[in-house]
Amino acid sequence: MPVRNTVRPGELDQFYNTVEAMHLRPGWLGRNVGMEREPHPKLKPYLWRWADVEPLVWKGGEMVTPGRDIERRVLRLASPGMERGTTHTMSAAIQLVLPGEVAPAHRHTPTAIRFIIKGKGSFTTVEGERCPMAPGDLILTPSWTWHDHVNQSEEPIIWLDGLDTPLVRGLEAVFYEDFPEDQQPVTKLVDDSELRYGAGALKPAWEQPSTQWSPLLHYKWERTYQALQKLAEVAASPFDDVALEYTNPANGGPVLPTMACLVQLIRPGVRTQAHRQTSSAVYYVVRGEGYSVINGQRFDWAKDDFFVVPPWAWHEHGSEAGEESVLFSIQDIPVLSALGLYREETYRDNGGHQAITSHFTGG
Amino acid sequence: MPVRNTVRPGELDQFYNTVEAMHLRPGWLGRNVGMEREPHPKLKPYLWRWADVEPLVWKGGEMVTPGRDIERRVLRLASPGMERGTTHTMSAAIQLVLPGEVAPAHRHTPTAIRFIIKGKGSFTTVEGERCPMAPGDLILTPSWTWHDHVNQSEEPIIWLDGLDTPLVRGLEAVFYEDFPEDQQPVTKLVDDSELRYGAGALKPAWEQPSTQWSPLLHYKWERTYQALQKLAEVAASPFDDVALEYTNPANGGPVLPTMACLVQLIRPGVRTQAHRQTSSAVYYVVRGEGYSVINGQRFDWAKDDFFVVPPWAWHEHGSEAGEESVLFSIQDIPVLSALGLYREETYRDNGGHQAITSHFTGG
Amino acid sequence: MPVRNTVRPGELDQFYNTVEAMHLRPGWLGRNVGMEREPHPKLKPYLWRWADVEPLVWKGGEMVTPGRDIERRVLRLASPGMERGTTHTMSAAIQLVLPGEVAPAHRHTPTAIRFIIKGKGSFTTVEGERCPMAPGDLILTPSWTWHDHVNQSEEPIIWLDGLDTPLVRGLEAVFYEDFPEDQQPVTKLVDDSELRYGAGALKPAWEQPSTQWSPLLHYKWERTYQALQKLAEVAASPFDDVALEYTNPANGGPVLPTMACLVQLIRPGVRTQAHRQTSSAVYYVVRGEGYSVINGQRFDWAKDDFFVVPPWAWHEHGSEAGEESVLFSIQDIPVLSALGLYREETYRDNGGHQAITSHFTGG
Amino acid sequence: MPVRNTVRPGELDQFYNTVEAMHLRPGWLGRNVGMEREPHPKLKPYLWRWADVEPLVWKGGEMVTPGRDIERRVLRLASPGMERGTTHTMSAAIQLVLPGEVAPAHRHTPTAIRFIIKGKGSFTTVEGERCPMAPGDLILTPSWTWHDHVNQSEEPIIWLDGLDTPLVRGLEAVFYEDFPEDQQPVTKLVDDSELRYGAGALKPAWEQPSTQWSPLLHYKWERTYQALQKLAEVAASPFDDVALEYTNPANGGPVLPTMACLVQLIRPGVRTQAHRQTSSAVYYVVRGEGYSVINGQRFDWAKDDFFVVPPWAWHEHGSEAGEESVLFSIQDIPVLSALGLYREETYRDNGGHQAITSHFTGG
Repeated sequence: MPVRNTVRPGELDQFYNTVEAMHLRPGWLGRNVGMEREPHPKLKPYLWRWADVEPLVWKGGEMVTPGRDIERRVLRLASPGMERGTTHTMSAAIQLVLPGEVAPAHRHTPTAIRFIIKGKGSFTTVEGERCPMAPGDLILTPSWTWHDHVNQSEEPIIWLDGLDTPLVRGLEAVFYEDFPEDQQPVTKLVDDSELRYGAGALKPAWEQPSTQWSPLLHYKWERTYQALQKLAEVAASPFDDVALEYTNPANGGPVLPTMACLVQLIRPGVRTQAHRQTSSAVYYVVRGEGYSVINGQRFDWAKDDFFVVPPWAWHEHGSEAGEESVLFSIQDIPVLSALGLYREETYRDNGGHQAITSHFTGG
Repeated sequence: MPVRNTVRPGELDQFYNTVEAMHLRPGWLGRNVGMEREPHPKLKPYLWRWADVEPLVWKGGEMVTPGRDIERRVLRLASPGMERGTTHTMSAAIQLVLPGEVAPAHRHTPTAIRFIIKGKGSFTTVEGERCPMAPGDLILTPSWTWHDHVNQSEEPIIWLDGLDTPLVRGLEAVFYEDFPEDQQPVTKLVDDSELRYGAGALKPAWEQPSTQWSPLLHYKWERTYQALQKLAEVAASPFDDVALEYTNPANGGPVLPTMACLVQLIRPGVRTQAHRQTSSAVYYVVRGEGYSVINGQRFDWAKDDFFVVPPWAWHEHGSEAGEESVLFSIQDIPVLSALGLYREETYRDNGGHQAITSHFTGG
Repeated sequence: MPVRNTVRPGELDQFYNTVEAMHLRPGWLGRNVGMEREPHPKLKPYLWRWADVEPLVWKGGEMVTPGRDIERRVLRLASPGMERGTTHTMSAAIQLVLPGEVAPAHRHTPTAIRFIIKGKGSFTTVEGERCPMAPGDLILTPSWTWHDHVNQSEEPIIWLDGLDTPLVRGLEAVFYEDFPEDQQPVTKLVDDSELRYGAGALKPAWEQPSTQWSPLLHYKWERTYQALQKLAEVAASPFDDVALEYTNPANGGPVLPTMACLVQLIRPGVRTQAHRQTSSAVYYVVRGEGYSVINGQRFDWAKDDFFVVPPWAWHEHGSEAGEESVLFSIQDIPVLSALGLYREETYRDNGGHQAITSHFTGG
Repeated sequence: MPVRNTVRPGELDQFYNTVEAMHLRPGWLGRNVGMEREPHPKLKPYLWRWADVEPLVWKGGEMVTPGRDIERRVLRLASPGMERGTTHTMSAAIQLVLPGEVAPAHRHTPTAIRFIIKGKGSFTTVEGERCPMAPGDLILTPSWTWHDHVNQSEEPIIWLDGLDTPLVRGLEAVFYEDFPEDQQPVTKLVDDSELRYGAGALKPAWEQPSTQWSPLLHYKWERTYQALQKLAEVAASPFDDVALEYTNPANGGPVLPTMACLVQLIRPGVRTQAHRQTSSAVYYVVRGEGYSVINGQRFDWAKDDFFVVPPWAWHEHGSEAGEESVLFSIQDIPVLSALGLYREETYRDNGGHQAITSHFTGG
């Protein structure tokens, strides 16, 4: 057993040197080794205006062409201060595919969703199933499923990509493979999974789908919007107003093991109350005009804007009077929940509303 | 340790008498105590023709009135040879409610479903939620939920009741309670659960519904029939043709812990292959004309007929050429599955088709 | 729509006759068709004294021999008033196998457990695994597993059989098959499953056992009794005193989908409080002397006695002062739970103790 | 729709500048944005010899004292090239508590395990339950449970700490709280959870433990080692020899949602075959002498050494002839599994054995 000596000058430094050389690190060294009372994430809230983004999307359309050199023509939402990712777990991007173009077939362990912004007549093919893309549609390309996008129409298509790449990279679990051809063969009927599972509360009687991800790959806007309107008749959340989660019909859970997809209608003039969660979220404004208050900062948004809410950030949303807004979002709630780390807290003061201390005016 | 003697004459009988007096029973006594190679259920296949049943339903309407003395004006499908129940686990019945009538509010641990045959404008109220009833709709009244039926319309309503009463009685687990009033108070919006969960693959983002039974209480015919048509484009079962199971959107499983509900479209001219299951089923012919072959006996059916398939009975279905048929059924599959007793076997001979050895001609 | 006529004399009877001929049954007919407020099971509490039973067990040993004619030499506990079964879902019996005898190999969909009363040196073989039998051991033979019993020792062995036969018969799901030989081949090490899963909270790292039933087939008495003593140091139930449930190490649930196995130590002088459950139970007195009060009737029991508690019967247990008692029981709780029918109620009056209105003195 | 122009010189650079200023990032830029065929983790295999580490542990004991300034006296295993953590998800450390010392009570969302190396007579207290620590014991302090360590004995104690801190930090979900006193009050019996759940396949009949983490907090060495010896009689994995996973008795799954704990006995002279997994592992040599081959590099280890296996690294293990070895490890398998990212691959060539291309000789 050690005898406690007085520590001689320099002895501690010498110890630290020796220890470091052995690839050990004293647990008591350094400020950042301690844990803080609650999360202070690097990620800050941010908003991208469509007015700024759109010209660059088209400009990219002029300058580069997807194919074997450029896998995808995308502009990623690169949150300030983050080395990569829109949040620490998710990466969102805007993809443009011009008439006649193909975004070649590949697969990877990161999971992706597409939410269509503009244009129709294009297809995403997932594991042999063609999903026609139309504004407001959600299409899933789960982990390790072959997928390609092809625009055989007369109009360009723009969509939001949402991936869990930062998470999967952080877990050192990225696998990637190119399909030998630009397009995979179409082996199923168009919208095969929608024809089987699209009704949601009815399923082919003889199928026992795996529950790892949703057997339904295509959630059409018409159904989504109808569901929002129906829910609006009957109930709303104090924090998210009329909010629906897209679910996996095979188990009622989130559509994907790493990302939840949500859509919420904020009724005209409604201002929700604030809460915070250990999850992060990327929002896309499907329609309307309004604002979110995130950690006391007001972000005004309009149709086609994007914004990001960091973990453990207070946030509340509002629609302009007379203006119904719809927000789509991807959220990493399933990751936090699966690992026992999901928490949520309600803002108690001031009727649930944060004091607005600043307005976001750009980068 | 016993020494094996020669058993003296009468000694065994004396032993049996003594043993019986002690409320013991030798395991080796009696033929029927042994187990047989496979099930030979008491229940036999049977069919009720609407042409026979309907006049009696109306006649019942003339003679008795639901209320506190007659809880429900129903005619039960009493399979020949069965003491009670349409099958050994389920009881089906035809219920008539005339304009102005109320089937009073009560609750019980047996679970019920309603499938509407004729008439609209009536309501079933379940736990404060009014479900408007229309032909082809499925309405759930899960175990121990308050429910009443009220006909405030100008037309009579007839529906199929399906209950798990024989099962719950057999388990000695029947509890029953009358509501103090004829009708329970309506505390929710009409079709509250349909407004929340009707889209199936979308759910109120903030709700974590119990999975014991479906949070969706009303499955409307329009959606069901659309789903059948969509599925018909893409896939079918060799045994049941275009078959859908109604699911619990909270977990993707059966709508109720004791009864699965299925609906199947048999395309014109299709004859399915035979299989048998350890589960039993009661079928209602929603539309069309066709036949089922059950253990070699042919049962011709037409719109609004009912028939029963016993456990472990070979069965296959056919539609007339040019005639699309739709069958609704309740099946006790979830019971067998939960207890590890579900089995299914495919008929191998003769292309999967049984030889027809007789035609059902009535009781 | 029917016009409500005055019902003419005899008209109703005529209606009933017509209806019955059609295999229909008016739902409003007969008192017993209604449901009662709570269960009034046919099964009554009963107790079998070992002093009465044992001589008959040995007598049976003298008179009949297990083999191809007599599958098993068992005396079933035939509760008074029950057509079959010790309860409506479970059948308990006492089995004797003499030195040199074999209870031939077979399998069936009913599930069985064995709890050893006396004798050691015999084996039960389950799916190729030999389980040596010793007093207090619990051995599982799950649904459709090959099993045989062989006594190659010098001493007779007596055990309690517990089966879910009444339940499986009621569900018309009994399948049965004889093994071509008296004994199945032994293909695994003695107690293979105990060597793999016996530690309970440790499992072979590479195995993903099915959870339908416990991968552990043999629960040895020594471990069970130690666990009781440990639990006695720290906690007890007000209704069952120091009670343990045997669990399936693959999912922490009951050992079998249809029967839970429990063991409880009633400490000297303890009298528990009463409760009632929708489940039924058959008890075996492993050691000690005490009593149970069931629906106000006192049943005094001693080592090796058996007794039965019906569904929804108030029951409480007591040990004599200075006398530690141990009860083993099989209970159909998993059935009720899986089907959403499990309920439990606490006796509130009189400190939780029923007034004793009679003493059980025999059949 | 954009017209494809010839891209003028400098135009692309100008585009990139504009885009960057908008916090967008072209998806086609940079080599590292693409995904690689399979993981090439930053983490490399490494080994820490006890002979090197132990003197520094004692030296730390002389120089610093745990208390309010130094939360824990630990030396972390700081893998070369990693900014923090022993792997990208887990942090392992060696902790020393001297007689009379207390490692003060706190709680945090990162989860921890302790595996005792040397010394007994100390306690870890978790949520009011004292767990006595002895060599080979595993003790859990799940997420957000109060815990402190106190050494009231005459001998120092050294243990291995394993935490999921890098993972939880990466998810920005660290919460931390100090207990107001150095030690939390002891509110339960010593080893309360072991007395209730220690038998593994038996549980208090009335408890329905949460399954988020194991209700059993203390896995004693004696039981673990017995289980290894029993398993050795019957089965082994080709990759890990006689390997057990500690399980959560409430659901049969891993003990914690973020870390699996395993223990494996490598029988004398055994050399396992290689495989690789997307999970990472930190190993501690409980006893014996042997080696592991990791990505072709041979690491010789002896009692009390530590080593790390990165994700997707081929690894196989061997014991010296005549020498039984035991390895304890923490592995992040549950994280990969929960998120659908767990993969495993078997080394096919050369009888499953890698060619050894180098020997590890130190940092």
